[in-house]
Amino acid sequence: MFQTFDVTSRPEQAAPRITALRVAMTDARLDAFIVPRADAHQGEYVAACDERLAWLTGFTGSAGFCVVARNGAAMFTDGRYTMQVRAQCDADLFEYVDWPATSIGEWILPRKAETIGFDPWLHTEQEINALRDTLKGSDKTLVATHNLIDKIWTDRPTRPAAPAVAQPFELTGMTTEDKFELVIKALQKAGAQTGVFTLPDSISWLLNIRGSDVAHNPVVQAFATLNTQGKLHLFADPAKFEDLGPDPRIVIAPRSEFNPHLQGLEGTVLIDPSSAPYALRSLIDDSGATIVLGDDPCILPKACKTEAEIAGSREAHLRDGAAVIEFLAWLDAQDPAQHSEISAATALEGFRAATNQLKDISFDTISGSGPNGAIVHYRVTTETDRKLSESELLLVDSGGQYVDGTTDITRTVSLGHPGAEERAAFTAVLQGMIAVSTARFPRGVAGAHLDALARAPLWRMGRDYDHGTGHGVGSYLSVHEGPQRISRVSQLPLQVGMILSNEPGYYKAGAYGIRIENLIVVREAPDIDGCDPRDMLDFETLTFVPIDRDLINADELAPWERDWLDSYHAQVWDLVSARVSASAKEWLRNATAAL
Amino acid sequence: MFQTFDVTSRPEQAAPRITALRVAMTDARLDAFIVPRADAHQGEYVAACDERLAWLTGFTGSAGFCVVARNGAAMFTDGRYTMQVRAQCDADLFEYVDWPATSIGEWILPRKAETIGFDPWLHTEQEINALRDTLKGSDKTLVATHNLIDKIWTDRPTRPAAPAVAQPFELTGMTTEDKFELVIKALQKAGAQTGVFTLPDSISWLLNIRGSDVAHNPVVQAFATLNTQGKLHLFADPAKFEDLGPDPRIVIAPRSEFNPHLQGLEGTVLIDPSSAPYALRSLIDDSGATIVLGDDPCILPKACKTEAEIAGSREAHLRDGAAVIEFLAWLDAQDPAQHSEISAATALEGFRAATNQLKDISFDTISGSGPNGAIVHYRVTTETDRKLSESELLLVDSGGQYVDGTTDITRTVSLGHPGAEERAAFTAVLQGMIAVSTARFPRGVAGAHLDALARAPLWRMGRDYDHGTGHGVGSYLSVHEGPQRISRVSQLPLQVGMILSNEPGYYKAGAYGIRIENLIVVREAPDIDGCDPRDMLDFETLTFVPIDRDLINADELAPWERDWLDSYHAQVWDLVSARVSASAKEWLRNATAAL
Repeated sequence: MFQTFDVTSRPEQAAPRITALRVAMTDARLDAFIVPRADAHQGEYVAACDERLAWLTGFTGSAGFCVVARNGAAMFTDGRYTMQVRAQCDADLFEYVDWPATSIGEWILPRKAETIGFDPWLHTEQEINALRDTLKGSDKTLVATHNLIDKIWTDRPTRPAAPAVAQPFELTGMTTEDKFELVIKALQKAGAQTGVFTLPDSISWLLNIRGSDVAHNPVVQAFATLNTQGKLHLFADPAKFEDLGPDPRIVIAPRSEFNPHLQGLEGTVLIDPSSAPYALRSLIDDSGATIVLGDDPCILPKACKTEAEIAGSREAHLRDGAAVIEFLAWLDAQDPAQHSEISAATALEGFRAATNQLKDISFDTISGSGPNGAIVHYRVTTETDRKLSESELLLVDSGGQYVDGTTDITRTVSLGHPGAEERAAFTAVLQGMIAVSTARFPRGVAGAHLDALARAPLWRMGRDYDHGTGHGVGSYLSVHEGPQRISRVSQLPLQVGMILSNEPGYYKAGAYGIRIENLIVVREAPDIDGCDPRDMLDFETLTFVPIDRDLINADELAPWERDWLDSYHAQVWDLVSARVSASAKEWLRNATAAL
Repeated sequence: MFQTFDVTSRPEQAAPRITALRVAMTDARLDAFIVPRADAHQGEYVAACDERLAWLTGFTGSAGFCVVARNGAAMFTDGRYTMQVRAQCDADLFEYVDWPATSIGEWILPRKAETIGFDPWLHTEQEINALRDTLKGSDKTLVATHNLIDKIWTDRPTRPAAPAVAQPFELTGMTTEDKFELVIKALQKAGAQTGVFTLPDSISWLLNIRGSDVAHNPVVQAFATLNTQGKLHLFADPAKFEDLGPDPRIVIAPRSEFNPHLQGLEGTVLIDPSSAPYALRSLIDDSGATIVLGDDPCILPKACKTEAEIAGSREAHLRDGAAVIEFLAWLDAQDPAQHSEISAATALEGFRAATNQLKDISFDTISGSGPNGAIVHYRVTTETDRKLSESELLLVDSGGQYVDGTTDITRTVSLGHPGAEERAAFTAVLQGMIAVSTARFPRGVAGAHLDALARAPLWRMGRDYDHGTGHGVGSYLSVHEGPQRISRVSQLPLQVGMILSNEPGYYKAGAYGIRIENLIVVREAPDIDGCDPRDMLDFETLTFVPIDRDLINADELAPWERDWLDSYHAQVWDLVSARVSASAKEWLRNATAAL
């Protein structure tokens, strides 16, 4: 099992650890210290040795900050973690702050804390600049320092050193040479002679390698620079790269040589202020080189998948879809009362593992029954586990990491007798999901323009959901990948090859949650009967798993919506029926019948 | 009749006038001179005395520039006027330039023209700065000068001096005192002690006055300043304001005193760089005052209509709707072969005039039959007039100016036997129009987010339309009013009281045009059954005129779309049937029957 259902939070440890931190603050002459969840690579997942926030506070969410002052400490978390932070962090120790509505600077300004320490490797350039702006004109000083947690965390795990594995050309569709050329052109366009890379998925993409340094996200943790002469310096434990063989363009050195390397750079150096650790600035300034701020030039080409990556993703989705269908068929045959959220998640991982090709799950499966389905980022533990019930919905959001692709799918199923309210809400969510699936749009349209298509059916009912409609997805990389998004704030035009999720939902707190999610990929729209000669894009659907017909009010669908659903289900049958067991096939025949 | 169908363009006059201009350029030591369509108020309509571009070149479109150099001249027009400029301006005299793809600066850079003159009252600060940026580093100099056209245009009409009429409180819902207070607060917020106002509709709104200085747009042309002490200086022919009586807060002075007044300002002065004439900058610089750039503070409150303005608009729309229904009923009873685009437009204006309350039409009626319907900004003349036909569609886009509101409505009707293609396209356009009409959305959503709702049904067919979905509309003011818009580029959140058009269309060049347009107003969304407690807005429909049922494929509509149409038609009957003649009522009964 990749997933565990243990309660990992240890709130009772927080008090002594905060006390130890305050002692370390005194030694370092600091009045406050900031502990972020992030590591130096700003990823969604961090290695065990980088779980400083969880170690200190007990909070295990994927984003947040703790600020410890002499008298008082605060936990900064966003709307996703309002409930969780209260459950995991003791109110006697911590003030709960709604972030980003209230920034760290705003919280600290009125307090008695003149010298505020932070680890410059764990904060981006942008974060520290924003904090400095807020504190401007006050009596407060920001001080970059060594990490005080690392001093007091005596049994801290060692840094992972999982071997890097080459991702073959058949799966990447682009050689490292070609990627170097692309990135060098982008550096030149930005007026930089060297680029500094700190995001593991950028480096893994650029070098066509994958690893297992962190859970669920097959990246290789490292730092790198690439100059316009085509020389790449890679900083990580050299033992990680032993299997890869020598490459004259690549110099591998231990992590400890990264700082001296930065201090020896010349000319113009590009860093991405949204992800580069703040520490880079002073190191590069030492070198006398000139810093150019700009987007990490790997991000956009990585987002636009090659034909090989899209072909791989199609295959990974059919394989993964067959596993999910096995699961849904199995679940349908069970007595819900004999099962729980955990047994469902366990069974699902089992069906994925039975493909013998599962490298990892893409993230901890969200298995939410009844009211737990309404908790958008719910992770079931042995403490929260809830029995399934005939009268409740089960929301399962899960995915697999395969060498040929990353999947992410949500299905919400009725376990017997759905209520009329749930059916009406499910139908509206489905209509939104179909509106995105069938969207065809001129080049230039961004996620911000399409987001409303997914919401309009819910909006008409006076409802909505408080998350984006879609996030980018990597190719055997991170399941949450930028810059592409379907969200009201995403102004980047969608481009051919971008893989996105399409996942509208509806959540009634304390009652039920609904989400339907497929992955889709942007392509040049094929000609259709009667179309005008316009340059348009559309989405190809990658995910092929039935959508629960028991939850659909067919009478409320438009003719074209009904056509889409019937044709989608016919495709599911055509593409996946030969890949599933006899019993699942029997179930699939009914599940994919026309409405 | 407010509309004329005469051909007003005089292309044969252009050659001698350009020659005369070149003589004036020599006298003024200029190598080129720019003639914009705009006047000093940057409005859509200009007075006869300000029609310099049409007088010089024969081009009568509502936007464009002519640049006359010693050897050569160019007409700069946007995509709307590609056809018209070729028809009106002789290719021997003028090069046609696609603007804004090619800017004036880009055109002039490679030419032998060192000294380029412009009238600083006819160009905005933004325009001249952009032009200056393009010419930077070249041998060219921009010179602000008196207007050379005014020198050679010997029979130039006099400036209009139509009397200003007070708009009563029952119709504005806000006193001038209250508007002063709002604007003064905005000036203070922008850090300015005085605001300069050059947009006639801002001034007309602020002072609750209306006029008739230009066609179709009941504004009073004037300049003004308001300081934070509440003193307003108004610059225009004082005779215009004789009927208004004295007001201690307002000083009225002739136009000629505006420049000395600007030269005497003190402190900080707000100007809007998107509309203020370039001339203001040097005059204010003379005064020693400091210029603050910012939005004209009248624009946003003017866009958010008061309850009284919305009530007035409802009444104006029912009155106007009754006139349009009389027209449609009359048209339906005619033999199409006996009629033409002009006779239809004439009849429509007649029905509006018969209300005895029509102050003007909102713009020249677009009456486009068959292929002429596909010309988005078509204005019929005696030369282009086309007979109506049973087998063709007629697109009529028109509006009325009433003292209580401005209307703008498009209906596309079948005159007998519509083709299957036209019906399918009309149905998709209708679906887009219903999607906007029924949109309910969280506060913060902008026009950019809703635009795709109107296009998605066409997009799915591989089609689109090359204009925005909706523009703002004034309250007995301009029929095109900012800042509110439904367009992919409009990031301004929609706010309660904003009136917008909702007008998707489809145009097949050389064949037919379809557009359906209602006006809608943003309001707090009323509670509906099953809605969540979310802060949402929606649209109230203002326009009540039937939509041609002969052009709708009812089978293609979603149940909720069909419900909307039937309920809309029932409302049309309920609200307007008592206001129309017996024969129109008979027609209306059928036209508003359920599908």
